[in-house]
Amino acid sequence: MVKVKIVGAGGYGGVGAIEILYRHPEAEIVALVDLLDTGKKISELYPHLLGICDLTITHPDDDSTDADVVFFSTPDRVGMKTAPGYFSKGYKIVDYSGDFRFDTEEAYAEYASRINLDTDHLSPDLLPHSAYGLAELHRADIGKAKIVGNPGCFAVSASLGAAPAVKAGLVDYNNMIFDAKTGVSGAGKKASPLFHYPHRYDEMNAYRVCKHQHVMEIERELGLLAGGDIKITFNTQVIPVVRGIMTSVYAKVNEGISYDEILSAYRDFYKGEPFITVIDENGSAGNRHVRGTNRCVLWVNLDRRTGTMVVMSHIDNLLKGQAGSAVQNMNILFGLDETSGLKTPGMYP
Amino acid sequence: MVKVKIVGAGGYGGVGAIEILYRHPEAEIVALVDLLDTGKKISELYPHLLGICDLTITHPDDDSTDADVVFFSTPDRVGMKTAPGYFSKGYKIVDYSGDFRFDTEEAYAEYASRINLDTDHLSPDLLPHSAYGLAELHRADIGKAKIVGNPGCFAVSASLGAAPAVKAGLVDYNNMIFDAKTGVSGAGKKASPLFHYPHRYDEMNAYRVCKHQHVMEIERELGLLAGGDIKITFNTQVIPVVRGIMTSVYAKVNEGISYDEILSAYRDFYKGEPFITVIDENGSAGNRHVRGTNRCVLWVNLDRRTGTMVVMSHIDNLLKGQAGSAVQNMNILFGLDETSGLKTPGMYP
Amino acid sequence: MVKVKIVGAGGYGGVGAIEILYRHPEAEIVALVDLLDTGKKISELYPHLLGICDLTITHPDDDSTDADVVFFSTPDRVGMKTAPGYFSKGYKIVDYSGDFRFDTEEAYAEYASRINLDTDHLSPDLLPHSAYGLAELHRADIGKAKIVGNPGCFAVSASLGAAPAVKAGLVDYNNMIFDAKTGVSGAGKKASPLFHYPHRYDEMNAYRVCKHQHVMEIERELGLLAGGDIKITFNTQVIPVVRGIMTSVYAKVNEGISYDEILSAYRDFYKGEPFITVIDENGSAGNRHVRGTNRCVLWVNLDRRTGTMVVMSHIDNLLKGQAGSAVQNMNILFGLDETSGLKTPGMYP
Amino acid sequence: MVKVKIVGAGGYGGVGAIEILYRHPEAEIVALVDLLDTGKKISELYPHLLGICDLTITHPDDDSTDADVVFFSTPDRVGMKTAPGYFSKGYKIVDYSGDFRFDTEEAYAEYASRINLDTDHLSPDLLPHSAYGLAELHRADIGKAKIVGNPGCFAVSASLGAAPAVKAGLVDYNNMIFDAKTGVSGAGKKASPLFHYPHRYDEMNAYRVCKHQHVMEIERELGLLAGGDIKITFNTQVIPVVRGIMTSVYAKVNEGISYDEILSAYRDFYKGEPFITVIDENGSAGNRHVRGTNRCVLWVNLDRRTGTMVVMSHIDNLLKGQAGSAVQNMNILFGLDETSGLKTPGMYP
Repeated sequence: MVKVKIVGAGGYGGVGAIEILYRHPEAEIVALVDLLDTGKKISELYPHLLGICDLTITHPDDDSTDADVVFFSTPDRVGMKTAPGYFSKGYKIVDYSGDFRFDTEEAYAEYASRINLDTDHLSPDLLPHSAYGLAELHRADIGKAKIVGNPGCFAVSASLGAAPAVKAGLVDYNNMIFDAKTGVSGAGKKASPLFHYPHRYDEMNAYRVCKHQHVMEIERELGLLAGGDIKITFNTQVIPVVRGIMTSVYAKVNEGISYDEILSAYRDFYKGEPFITVIDENGSAGNRHVRGTNRCVLWVNLDRRTGTMVVMSHIDNLLKGQAGSAVQNMNILFGLDETSGLKTPGMYP
Repeated sequence: MVKVKIVGAGGYGGVGAIEILYRHPEAEIVALVDLLDTGKKISELYPHLLGICDLTITHPDDDSTDADVVFFSTPDRVGMKTAPGYFSKGYKIVDYSGDFRFDTEEAYAEYASRINLDTDHLSPDLLPHSAYGLAELHRADIGKAKIVGNPGCFAVSASLGAAPAVKAGLVDYNNMIFDAKTGVSGAGKKASPLFHYPHRYDEMNAYRVCKHQHVMEIERELGLLAGGDIKITFNTQVIPVVRGIMTSVYAKVNEGISYDEILSAYRDFYKGEPFITVIDENGSAGNRHVRGTNRCVLWVNLDRRTGTMVVMSHIDNLLKGQAGSAVQNMNILFGLDETSGLKTPGMYP
Repeated sequence: MVKVKIVGAGGYGGVGAIEILYRHPEAEIVALVDLLDTGKKISELYPHLLGICDLTITHPDDDSTDADVVFFSTPDRVGMKTAPGYFSKGYKIVDYSGDFRFDTEEAYAEYASRINLDTDHLSPDLLPHSAYGLAELHRADIGKAKIVGNPGCFAVSASLGAAPAVKAGLVDYNNMIFDAKTGVSGAGKKASPLFHYPHRYDEMNAYRVCKHQHVMEIERELGLLAGGDIKITFNTQVIPVVRGIMTSVYAKVNEGISYDEILSAYRDFYKGEPFITVIDENGSAGNRHVRGTNRCVLWVNLDRRTGTMVVMSHIDNLLKGQAGSAVQNMNILFGLDETSGLKTPGMYP
Repeated sequence: MVKVKIVGAGGYGGVGAIEILYRHPEAEIVALVDLLDTGKKISELYPHLLGICDLTITHPDDDSTDADVVFFSTPDRVGMKTAPGYFSKGYKIVDYSGDFRFDTEEAYAEYASRINLDTDHLSPDLLPHSAYGLAELHRADIGKAKIVGNPGCFAVSASLGAAPAVKAGLVDYNNMIFDAKTGVSGAGKKASPLFHYPHRYDEMNAYRVCKHQHVMEIERELGLLAGGDIKITFNTQVIPVVRGIMTSVYAKVNEGISYDEILSAYRDFYKGEPFITVIDENGSAGNRHVRGTNRCVLWVNLDRRTGTMVVMSHIDNLLKGQAGSAVQNMNILFGLDETSGLKTPGMYP
């Protein structure tokens, strides 16, 4: 059994991991750590966990429980500060923030500057041991890494939505547009006027228009696939859905490329992937396909009138976009079945 | 492995059972039956089931697959018509409707007349083999039965909410009031103007005021506990929640009864019950405690100013109120661990 | 034109008054006062007001604009502190809080103690000039008053729902039960974890069970009608509706009283009332009847099996439950048509 | 007073017009016509209209009431069939469907073929008397017309969002992308499984991907402004908002064009327009700006990294996208103040 310690257990990312790991046949949670609510049982905070997980939340300084892996479900710059201690004791590490998504100090600095953080990485020595945790693109690297930088939720949706077309060179990747809509849980559990129920229930709006920090991950990933620099237009919106991301991916199709070639590229690229579903233009897709699951559903369309590929990319932002990917990465780190704990229907309606 | 056939698989009650049985270590679904969508995979109708359950829906007349138990997730009078065939082949039966909730033809006739159905029971011979499927009140009977009449969702909430106080004789049970609110999924998956999204999103209303058919089950159950006839006031309302029932139970407390006696009565009555949580007046409870779980949470309060007991009874109408109880009853019918497949956190948020 | 100054303009109670007064042919807003956001236009905070009301928010100390009436859409104990200054200048006053709902210092003290406030009234000299602002019960008093204590939203719903039956002596008013459900806007615009969108969207829960401070107003009002002391059981719940209150009123009907007598009592009591609609048991009612309007809709039912009257009382908590009643009271204070500004359909859906 | 007859009064488009015209100082509704619910008062169907509009719904064949203008809030091909009778009697006509949005039989035929309708226009003689009802682009034509083809809701949002940039030649208008999200009311009041509350509440999905019929209107309008043919990529999605459309407009900015030039183009183009608000990149916009109003809010952004203009275009689909534009057009047809009846704050929250 892989022993898991979750730091930042009291947030949505922590509770998501608890829900998954409860079902995981080869892993168990041994410690829940948070700055807030220490001394309380997690099931007091989240009563749906009663009888499922009744562990007591401990303070970050409490080091009494050993584990094999630590999940940092924490804000930027927390994981990088605490990671060295765990690393030196042989823990593997999955960090949800941007701390280990970039393998150079320069790239981190650029990322950090976008969100007004200090730009110095606090654990540069660890970067060579890290991998970017988008399993469908970096499975082998993750398998060899000690630390995984879990990808941003929007980046999962966008990168998976465009990767096959970019890799196969089917589209003009210098002019791609990503129109992304997220549910409210993407902003976490902290109450704010923007997410106050009476304000949000019939509200929708763009935010940080073309300035969202996840764009860096997407451009890096697509650039690697294209073999060159890529700049994308990436627009983020929040709508009154609780969990889910829907990203429309638009790209001009190169001369002479048919719909069947595009579809084949997607099917081939994701062949055998346990969590990717490709749907053709005669089908349909929506949040229902992915809500409560670790799946990414890609609905591949072509606007023949304008020669534009339109891929609708759907994930559950709290699963494939966060805790689900974290567990998927943990499974790879420990050589377990990659789907362990993750084959779940969620619940409908 | 208990082999399960689900008739009426395409409704919310069917899909709920599929979600649970997928997790069940000692049961497996062998056939999905419905009048609609035969020939389609269930995962085409419910895409979140992709890779979880991809069985093809068969017609009721298709008798090619054998099973140990059949779930009738069907409207009133379907189960009683088809049950004899299954019964004679040795199947056990769990029926979601009112068909087997009453053990006499007379009681059934009264029930049926309330909802304008034919009043003759079509399988009176089977009634002696049936039990009422509220496990906390009839566990022993269910264990000896062949057929279980799964209780109405409101009846689960109301009966469990009042049972201990009535049994212990702490309240004036001739003047009890049950104010019940249900989420919209209680009306099933059939679209209707009342549940059209733009109409329902900020709507709340009572319906069948004091005429809901579930009142009969509740009065019968409480009457059995009281050892006499009981008439209750039972009012049903629908609100823009998707899954969940919250019932306020009001009863005048008998002279000299203290809050501690009431609380003790609830704690004693449900001692050892795996799915019942009693919360005292210093705690709190809400739909979050039960959503996605098979739990019934009872928050026991006393208005000392008026001498009125106020119990807030919460269930997930699709789990403890329907498919969860169905599987719980199946577990009892087959001597399995009663919680098998049912210890699930749901998902939050 | 009646000149209106709104103190606490930035909250839901303020914006509600602005929306109404914009339509009011005989009143105009001359000043918006708030502690927060001074110097900003109200339409910056509430962009739907752009071009409707673009007044700048001023600080409470800014006394440069004269008015005829001041609305205190402020928390408890703000109005009573500031009222004397306005009163001495001849302003009429409508206060939304509990400050002027009670006409004796003793009654105020009891109210204040329930919500853990200081119990001394700061302007006892003003109490003789005040009236309780439930127009249907105190129209004449309001007409003669200088200060109106606008009623609590729950109190409006409950008092109007029970008044005719109590007044006519048709029910046992010592055992009445009020089961009240409110939309989330009742808690105001301040963000909190309980009203965070992802938490609230499928949540429902009771709170302050049988301890809500509005119970005092209701008991006082019903006691006045009954000619004696009344104690009621009053339970409050919050559900994921944005605006609306639905209160179920339960009372045992006295021996020999028929449904028709009850219905007649309601019809007679509210005869000619512009904002009250009585619906008989063959009709139906819901939040749609009142959302966006100043109406109170009473659906009068009788459970003949148990001899229990069940009245479903519906209001929009932000209109008849708050700003609508405030303007209705202002109309009475100034001898205007009581419905001025208040005949609005809201919007559907 | 302009006398208005509304055909199709029982749908959302009808009730929207009723809500507006109730407030209109120079118009009054004289007849409500529908195939369904004839003989009922509209306030029985829509109880929020009680006391606001209690007219009885009459059958289309009932011709007893005279009016000055008829609103066809009806499906495609109803208005064109009935219009000649009204036209010959001198009525002016506002049709909500696609029947009079195209001024040639050829253009209509292409439109009709997209949505699988018969392609012959039934009243070709009337086409020369019609104008396209997007007032900001065709005010003069509307003023001279007898018949107005009210624009499609998506077309309003998209055309207004792109018009200034196209007109000024600032962008590459051969590669524009419109990513449009609509609330559920856009589908009308007819219940369907896709808009069943439990299905829709946490659902979002694209539909008719790049095949929505409104694309024709948008391309025609933008083509007129550009002085040439334009083909756009236009993608439609539905999300769990009740009322509102948010369209992201993407276009590559031509070499050397600055953000200030773009912003100025928008400000100049819409100078003096009563219902258009242009917001610069330092501001923000959301559905709250337009919900319940006849406004179109345009938030003009530039992604300098990729040289892409991103305009967020917001309207209330039931007002500026439907009944609001209809009344605006009526005001122009009759030479009234264009904002009559339309300056309303809606309600918040």
